[in-house]
Amino acid sequence: MIREDGDVDPLLHFPHHDGSPLYRRPEHAPLGDTVQVRVRTSNHLLPDAVWLRTVEDAEPFFAACTVERTEGDTTWWVGSVRLHNPVQRYRFLVAFGDTFVWLNQAGVFDRDVTDAHDFTVSCHEAAPDWGRDAVVYQIFPDRFARSAAADDRPIPDWAVPAQWDDAPIHSGPHTPLQFYGGDLDGITEHLDHVVALGVTTIYLTPVFPGESNHRYNASTFETVDPLLGGDDAYRRLIDAAHERGLHVLGDLTSNHTGDTHEWFQRAVADEGSEERGYYYFAADGSHEGWKGYDTLPKLDHTAPGLSERFGAVVARWLEFGIDGWRIDVANMTGRHVDVDVAHQVAREIRATATDVRPNALVLAEHGHDATGDLDGDGWHGTMNYYGFSFPVWEWLRDPRRPVPSFGLPVDVPRRDGTAMVAAMRDFTASFGWDAVGASWNILGSHDSPRIRTTTGSADLHHVAAVLQFTLPGVPMVFAGDELGFEGVDGEDSRRTMPWDDVAAFSTRTAGVYAALARLRAEHVALRRGGLRWVHVGADEVAYLREHPDGTVLVTATRTGTTEPELPGIVKGERLIQVGDSGRSPRASIWKVS
Amino acid sequence: MIREDGDVDPLLHFPHHDGSPLYRRPEHAPLGDTVQVRVRTSNHLLPDAVWLRTVEDAEPFFAACTVERTEGDTTWWVGSVRLHNPVQRYRFLVAFGDTFVWLNQAGVFDRDVTDAHDFTVSCHEAAPDWGRDAVVYQIFPDRFARSAAADDRPIPDWAVPAQWDDAPIHSGPHTPLQFYGGDLDGITEHLDHVVALGVTTIYLTPVFPGESNHRYNASTFETVDPLLGGDDAYRRLIDAAHERGLHVLGDLTSNHTGDTHEWFQRAVADEGSEERGYYYFAADGSHEGWKGYDTLPKLDHTAPGLSERFGAVVARWLEFGIDGWRIDVANMTGRHVDVDVAHQVAREIRATATDVRPNALVLAEHGHDATGDLDGDGWHGTMNYYGFSFPVWEWLRDPRRPVPSFGLPVDVPRRDGTAMVAAMRDFTASFGWDAVGASWNILGSHDSPRIRTTTGSADLHHVAAVLQFTLPGVPMVFAGDELGFEGVDGEDSRRTMPWDDVAAFSTRTAGVYAALARLRAEHVALRRGGLRWVHVGADEVAYLREHPDGTVLVTATRTGTTEPELPGIVKGERLIQVGDSGRSPRASIWKVS
Repeated sequence: MIREDGDVDPLLHFPHHDGSPLYRRPEHAPLGDTVQVRVRTSNHLLPDAVWLRTVEDAEPFFAACTVERTEGDTTWWVGSVRLHNPVQRYRFLVAFGDTFVWLNQAGVFDRDVTDAHDFTVSCHEAAPDWGRDAVVYQIFPDRFARSAAADDRPIPDWAVPAQWDDAPIHSGPHTPLQFYGGDLDGITEHLDHVVALGVTTIYLTPVFPGESNHRYNASTFETVDPLLGGDDAYRRLIDAAHERGLHVLGDLTSNHTGDTHEWFQRAVADEGSEERGYYYFAADGSHEGWKGYDTLPKLDHTAPGLSERFGAVVARWLEFGIDGWRIDVANMTGRHVDVDVAHQVAREIRATATDVRPNALVLAEHGHDATGDLDGDGWHGTMNYYGFSFPVWEWLRDPRRPVPSFGLPVDVPRRDGTAMVAAMRDFTASFGWDAVGASWNILGSHDSPRIRTTTGSADLHHVAAVLQFTLPGVPMVFAGDELGFEGVDGEDSRRTMPWDDVAAFSTRTAGVYAALARLRAEHVALRRGGLRWVHVGADEVAYLREHPDGTVLVTATRTGTTEPELPGIVKGERLIQVGDSGRSPRASIWKVS
Repeated sequence: MIREDGDVDPLLHFPHHDGSPLYRRPEHAPLGDTVQVRVRTSNHLLPDAVWLRTVEDAEPFFAACTVERTEGDTTWWVGSVRLHNPVQRYRFLVAFGDTFVWLNQAGVFDRDVTDAHDFTVSCHEAAPDWGRDAVVYQIFPDRFARSAAADDRPIPDWAVPAQWDDAPIHSGPHTPLQFYGGDLDGITEHLDHVVALGVTTIYLTPVFPGESNHRYNASTFETVDPLLGGDDAYRRLIDAAHERGLHVLGDLTSNHTGDTHEWFQRAVADEGSEERGYYYFAADGSHEGWKGYDTLPKLDHTAPGLSERFGAVVARWLEFGIDGWRIDVANMTGRHVDVDVAHQVAREIRATATDVRPNALVLAEHGHDATGDLDGDGWHGTMNYYGFSFPVWEWLRDPRRPVPSFGLPVDVPRRDGTAMVAAMRDFTASFGWDAVGASWNILGSHDSPRIRTTTGSADLHHVAAVLQFTLPGVPMVFAGDELGFEGVDGEDSRRTMPWDDVAAFSTRTAGVYAALARLRAEHVALRRGGLRWVHVGADEVAYLREHPDGTVLVTATRTGTTEPELPGIVKGERLIQVGDSGRSPRASIWKVS
């Protein structure tokens, strides 16, 4: 049914709809109100009818769409979705002669499909504008930079001191204890680097005291670690960031605390305490821990009092000055065996956060499939490893040698562009458009190999960065990626920033990141535009980001192949090209309108 | 990666796992216990490793599977799934050299996939054996048969009397009022026909009084409609059925009652009554109805008292003698705007039912996508229109003329076998194996066109019946389908059974149904075996139903094409063939082992 017609790439002829302003308006509506939805069809493959299918209280209903106008080769159809349910599902039946296709968020299907990939429109607000428009820079405080004051601080007993240029201990008991002494004033001193890169939001992994270099095992949520400079240094950093127009995100462990945490200590000391109920103690006095680690006792969010206690923490630091939270292990939070209050916890955290700061962002760590956990009145988005990172790693991984993965028992496989796009569509179509746009496009983090190592070359790295900054979602850059640093796994990626050795910095790579951040700021299509794939091959892909205020085209190839012809698209000005013009991997962004 | 190796159909080389006894044992386990899972791989495409991936509290974990044994061309891998959560998700990572595929319930994928199609194993019991092994016969009481006593009953005021051989009024105000006067003793008199067909369960659409011929608008749940012969006739029918080894299913509207229902009458009469809360009344006194019909006021399952009141109805008729319930509009039940207690209602109904009768069956009507509504401690299965009926209709529809659909604004499209199988896999992989096996394979019902009309020929009809009786799931036959009756839509399909005109009966078709029912009873593989697709083409498909106690092969073609060669499979004895041996559509069942 969907067939090539003449010599034009057939993807361009496919019916299309997404949640962007060209296709849906307004972005949100209260329960009971309607939003207008539009479907673009090509006159090379003009349907006989387009039907809107909504699912209300789990029952499907159909309504005919009408032709709004014809514009060149395009016929626009329009329909009206009433928000009967808070997250309203819909898709389209596109009829051609005696057959039809379904159009949903994953694309066009000439067979019946479940509702899993239906479009959704929500009565809940999307993430705040600053969160959706952000370029996020992730900083791991122990490894980013030391201020002079760091030299004067005593090393705690638990720590294994390291020199700034020591290599991290790859694995073993000393791995979490190896202490470099980076601090918050160190970060403040380097904010100019961050601003020059085009970053708009800094996200710091935890700053609460914890007996480890990563601090995901908090001893308290009440104070900033004195080893980082304490509350005062956090105040200085936040103020300096805000002065430069940067937003600041904290990192909060909602799934567990450290075993040194004051709540847990009290729970152990006093079986009659309220805090005893915060954790999962067995009859024999043992307790549940994150992935079985006793040092990370898991919180029981059904416990009386914990909701208020945890809410007070959420609120306190937003009042102190941060702009939102990244929530650690959000996927497991509130889930335990036959209890699942994950959505309730998310809802409470978001409500508390937006009570304090109406523009607060709450962003969930979710290491695999966040389907069903977004789109509501909880998390605004997720760290989109599976809808972005893995597909990109698989397409752009170093073809010459095994490439270590993250969270898998095997290396990263090398897959074609068709597999990359199919995986992206499967995952992102399982979230709503709002959640995709607020979720983080990650090429590497403190938990994974670095993208330079994964790709094995600057050129492939730069192609990956183009995808990161131009596909729907928020680019999150792990500090050092922009300088071309290497790392074979999470620990290795936590090498310190060698500020005294600028020769180690790849200025070319930093230039690519800065240019991409600037383009993202300048072109609303890259932040809010729709996404229409126009070419998907093994070695090259191309897509349009469409917006009423301008459309851009992105083309990318991982080999020295010629970039695909894209008949039907007038490329216009080339805004950037990464990669040599010759036979190397390369990508370009073009202004279409 | 998955590639053809020699001249053997590559589907046979694919890694395979499903929930059947050859691949998983035991069928269920209590929380915390483990089940053994096995993956079959072909030595023509032998993996280097098979990893079991479980998702516990929404976090993935990996464990290596081990080689259990090699058996001819097959290598078996084994792993162990612990039921950390009540419905435990898992899938397999199958590694080949430097790449891997995912194996989930929808098949094999050489890209990343969401968890939507993960295998599931549950700590909740599956449907009772009789429900899973059933051949269900659906009877619409007004149209099945009249006993002599029917002549003596006064016609009620609301009814528009019809003669037994009148055609149903297709649409209009008289459609639901046209009254033929079929009754329960009429059914009892024809149980021999039902038994001869190989039916094991009769399912009657509602028998409560209601001012319509379909009785989905109950006036009470306390008595059987006197127009059907009342409680006594129901007793006679149930006893006669049980004497013949038949089970009996009732039909209960949990989403709504009629506006003549005693609860609704009291709610209208007394704003202070408990019953007032059972319905959704607006301030202006109007009320919500099913799809906007005032005559079908929707129940509010959050109302105080309704749970007990409704539970008493569920229990009462099971105590009276029925063996389970088909639940009408289960998809919408308990769902309204921003409230969703659907699973709670399902859980309560099932718990109440199994308290009264440990072997009770609760089967949910769900007209499109029941994903997420099965597999728990609620409904055992669903009317699987989208995982069976629609795909089969699309593959086997009359190619010569437009074929009306059911619930869609367009006709049934004609699609290839590849589309049929892809749709079946998408839907059934969204349910667990237990739910698929307990769900109903429907070729037509009182709501849809009849399969003879959809296919347009006896041969295609018989091919459809082979799929109905041999794919996982329970065949549900709408009375008259086995006699080759026609019907262009739900109303037309409700034509009366012409018992006095046996010449109208297709004895050939009845013979096919009886033979298929017999084969289903004789071959456990057809009731409990796994499902492995071995050939999927545009016009022909073939699949194995595998079981430790014997395996059968099913081949089907919709055209006069030669049946596909299936190298690697020794067909053995042909148990049945439908369709001429020449150039007509045909299907066969073969004993493989």
